Amino acid sequence: MRTIEWNNGTIALIDQTLLPAEYKIIGCETVSSLCEAIVSLRIRGAPALGAAGGYGVALAAHTGAHTTAATTPAMFKQFMHDLCAASETIKQTRPTAINLAWGVDRVMGAILESGTSRIDEAKRIALCEAVAIAEEDVQRNRRLGRNGAALFEDGDTVLTHCNAGRLACVDVGTAIGVIRAAVEAGKEISVVSCETRPLNQGSRITVWELMQDRIPVTLITDSAAGSMMREGKIDRVIVGADRITRDAVFNKIGTYTHSVLAKEHDIPFYVAAPISTFDPARLERDVVIEERDPDELRRIGDVILAPAGAVVYNPAFDATPIANVTAVITEDGVMYPAQPDWWRHVRDPSNTAVPKS
Amino acid sequence: MRTIEWNNGTIALIDQTLLPAEYKIIGCETVSSLCEAIVSLRIRGAPALGAAGGYGVALAAHTGAHTTAATTPAMFKQFMHDLCAASETIKQTRPTAINLAWGVDRVMGAILESGTSRIDEAKRIALCEAVAIAEEDVQRNRRLGRNGAALFEDGDTVLTHCNAGRLACVDVGTAIGVIRAAVEAGKEISVVSCETRPLNQGSRITVWELMQDRIPVTLITDSAAGSMMREGKIDRVIVGADRITRDAVFNKIGTYTHSVLAKEHDIPFYVAAPISTFDPARLERDVVIEERDPDELRRIGDVILAPAGAVVYNPAFDATPIANVTAVITEDGVMYPAQPDWWRHVRDPSNTAVPKS
Repeated sequence: MRTIEWNNGTIALIDQTLLPAEYKIIGCETVSSLCEAIVSLRIRGAPALGAAGGYGVALAAHTGAHTTAATTPAMFKQFMHDLCAASETIKQTRPTAINLAWGVDRVMGAILESGTSRIDEAKRIALCEAVAIAEEDVQRNRRLGRNGAALFEDGDTVLTHCNAGRLACVDVGTAIGVIRAAVEAGKEISVVSCETRPLNQGSRITVWELMQDRIPVTLITDSAAGSMMREGKIDRVIVGADRITRDAVFNKIGTYTHSVLAKEHDIPFYVAAPISTFDPARLERDVVIEERDPDELRRIGDVILAPAGAVVYNPAFDATPIANVTAVITEDGVMYPAQPDWWRHVRDPSNTAVPKS
Repeated sequence: MRTIEWNNGTIALIDQTLLPAEYKIIGCETVSSLCEAIVSLRIRGAPALGAAGGYGVALAAHTGAHTTAATTPAMFKQFMHDLCAASETIKQTRPTAINLAWGVDRVMGAILESGTSRIDEAKRIALCEAVAIAEEDVQRNRRLGRNGAALFEDGDTVLTHCNAGRLACVDVGTAIGVIRAAVEAGKEISVVSCETRPLNQGSRITVWELMQDRIPVTLITDSAAGSMMREGKIDRVIVGADRITRDAVFNKIGTYTHSVLAKEHDIPFYVAAPISTFDPARLERDVVIEERDPDELRRIGDVILAPAGAVVYNPAFDATPIANVTAVITEDGVMYPAQPDWWRHVRDPSNTAVPKS
């Protein structure tokens, strides 16, 4: 199933906190159970949270105490009042997750713009819009994947970092979506997944996803990437992105190191990200990189990895200068940073002539 | 205290399996308790195991049922017979650890060469030789440290990988010994320690050692090294070595990646290792790199990091081409790989003119 789905009046989602030890689908029958799932990171990833926000409003509409088909104005007013309150509750579960609020607001907006005053009609519109959000994410990732797949060759071994896969989205994924599309196009692709310290999204999620899809995948430590490239075992690198400015790609810590290693060994380095990731008005220097909890390096579960009180520097992301990036793959086409004003030039990937700067 | 010491008829050692959660000194009063400590990795590291072998023979000599001062030939014969058996037992705890056997054999050899036929004299010689092994290791590391310290500047921030510190030796350490010597010479040095996946020797041991010595240390993930170098936060890199051929340095996986990053950012990259590490008759292609247990990447303690059955590539070491190394620091002086036949030219580090190739 998809990362998140509407299932007969409930929201079904893959509990990502249990992976890879256990694959379990949980059903959220109430807004409060959905909120618990979001707070506990049972579902995470910007596009997936956008869908969760949308489905959350639909769930609130369907589970309130408003089940009569005939609607009086007072009943509809109360219905909308309750729906607004539920929407706020959902948004507050992760107040900085911009996609979550965006998904909630988009569904609420669709009801309001419809001008309906009937509860059953509002329920129908809410679900319709939530399904549309999810479906658009999947279709966008499929287009992105097909655009990127054109750049891969049969027999390639591809290194990836972190998880730009389907579990961060509704389905398919971005960087992993490209790999899936290349495999679907009949190319034989092997993946090398870096474990991605400190939270191990590579070993926990990317490896799991690819094993599920029966795409060959080998897990390595982040620091083994260099010697594998030197030994000629890596043909391409592909990663996702959290933000792309005119001069840099912000992505999971470690991405920059891989880009330097790829340059050293003449290996193409690709970034796969939807157009919504672009922030061309900004430069690298305008972006602040958040630091995460030092305890992520001090312990795993009950296992102590470093002395109590050890000073830790734990940046969540790093910046890769755009000059280290061979191509940026989007749902609209491929961009080549070697070209001047590269972010203005989306190219059809089937045109394989790489523009010169 | 030192990693391992003779303490009033027993062997005292720091139990490294408990670090960094607990600092505990255990006393081995019998050969069998020492053997248990070696098998369980309570003590590890080639130079430290050499000392453990030597002290082990001394312990066997002092704890056998041979306490009379006056010795008959039959009594001495039985004493030596028992000592040989104990020596074999010690060596068999880690049969591939060459230094362990070397330490045992050196002490046995000293007794035999002395020509003594007295038990009390044999006991004295055994202890004397064991103490000499330990003391030589410490003095060698101190000389190496002083040679390297000359290359550091006041205010340097130094990145290191894995643990080339005192807990792998009797005391002082190699790469960390250089840092200690620079600090003792009055230079202000800060260290950045990479956690060193998969076994986290950096976070578990290097950070602990430096905190004990009150040398400022910051723990990072291995993959954060690149962005720190790009931000100008790293002045030098220093690592140990497991083996040095004419064309490459073999050291913990991840060392090569750091060397490429250092080259990209014009940061000096040093290797600190005793002369015994050199293998100039060999080339990189002659050395096989061992792969370790895949489970090191699949779990930590009870925490599952990757799906059961995930394919893992877990090389213990990598090879850094000697061209990426600025200088090799030994107890006899410093060598500069930019020079032809570099391994034949040990230079006084106080001569700061770097030879050109």
